[in-house]
Amino acid sequence: MPGKPAIAIIGGTGDLGSGLARQLAKAGYAITIGSRTLEKAQQAATEIRKNIPAANIRAAANPDAAASAEVVIMTVPFASHARTIDSLVDSVQGKILVDATVPLVPPKVMRVQLPPGGCVAKRAQQTLGQNVRVVSAFQNIAAAHLHGDDLSAIACDVLVCGNDPEARQCVVGLAENIGLRAWQAGPIDNSVVAEALTSVLIFLNKKYQLDGAGIRITDTVTASMNNPGQV
Amino acid sequence: MPGKPAIAIIGGTGDLGSGLARQLAKAGYAITIGSRTLEKAQQAATEIRKNIPAANIRAAANPDAAASAEVVIMTVPFASHARTIDSLVDSVQGKILVDATVPLVPPKVMRVQLPPGGCVAKRAQQTLGQNVRVVSAFQNIAAAHLHGDDLSAIACDVLVCGNDPEARQCVVGLAENIGLRAWQAGPIDNSVVAEALTSVLIFLNKKYQLDGAGIRITDTVTASMNNPGQV
Repeated sequence: MPGKPAIAIIGGTGDLGSGLARQLAKAGYAITIGSRTLEKAQQAATEIRKNIPAANIRAAANPDAAASAEVVIMTVPFASHARTIDSLVDSVQGKILVDATVPLVPPKVMRVQLPPGGCVAKRAQQTLGQNVRVVSAFQNIAAAHLHGDDLSAIACDVLVCGNDPEARQCVVGLAENIGLRAWQAGPIDNSVVAEALTSVLIFLNKKYQLDGAGIRITDTVTASMNNPGQV
Repeated sequence: MPGKPAIAIIGGTGDLGSGLARQLAKAGYAITIGSRTLEKAQQAATEIRKNIPAANIRAAANPDAAASAEVVIMTVPFASHARTIDSLVDSVQGKILVDATVPLVPPKVMRVQLPPGGCVAKRAQQTLGQNVRVVSAFQNIAAAHLHGDDLSAIACDVLVCGNDPEARQCVVGLAENIGLRAWQAGPIDNSVVAEALTSVLIFLNKKYQLDGAGIRITDTVTASMNNPGQV
């Protein structure tokens, strides 16, 4: 996929979705914000234009947003995951779908509660079929920080899982282009680590009074944090 | 549990078990190495005494080893997990059982393959009953490095999960006393993160040619790695 792919953000009015939209627009991507209603999507797009006047950003209802894009990022609450995936089956065929869903089940969000089958992104891949390249990413990034100007404050690596290496690398590139460190982390089955990790990070925030716990991948040899771009 | 608890290491002849035995003996703990046969346990204990002459270390068959200790660390292959837990039910009542089992299913060790129920340590807790405090830890430490003299080479934090906070803190203390960073990471359900993470780390080692990938917990505010002892 040469150049910068057109991106739709399904559920783009939430904290994570609108934060990613803002950062990706700032990085020069053409963004379509999707929502269940066009009006809400338009409000979110207007808000981003206030911060990023040069943003190439438009609004659409979710299925139209997905139909218009090459890469479709899904940032919906877990309770809406299955319904949203079902609604996108036709419009995402042949595309990359980035699933950022975290299977939190309130009120016990500090306890890992695995969904049926163990992994929501794997379920998305199964529902959408092999003609859609599902990649999971962004589950562990504190959304609030995506609304700031300095992403270097986000000391959290992005684990990128999916069955297609080219699609994984495309999403690693998206993350790097907005200033995050990202790693290809294996097949879609491995997404359970990133999906479940969020509950551990919420637990750490409370137990150790952290503001936004994250993880860095390290290498034993160097005993330091690596830059995946350098290895 | 004041002072240093007596520790048994079940499956203490393997790479991880014998490495932990060596480091804990070096840190002054009284260790009993357990194995299915007394002879193999004795060989492992002799080997450790060569490196740590002052080691307080003895050998026993697994159930005897467990019966003699206050904290029982289990480092057996996943294929032996259920059978070993069943064999320990009587001898670990009232104690802390540290489950370090990683549910790898060869040959596809870079792919997360969740066990029935999702989490081996949770299954151990269910089998052993509420009178045993199951804590999971040490799944992500490259065993080879536990046989060296410099644990500062291990740039990998230990996630410590279990339903009893006092038992979790006891295991955090064990890890810290051998030079590792460790964090209480929530209830036993959260162990799935550490158990599944090992497959991701093996994938990263291969994909990015790392020697021993690990994780550090970070805090967004400081954008640096934390010392859990300081927060």
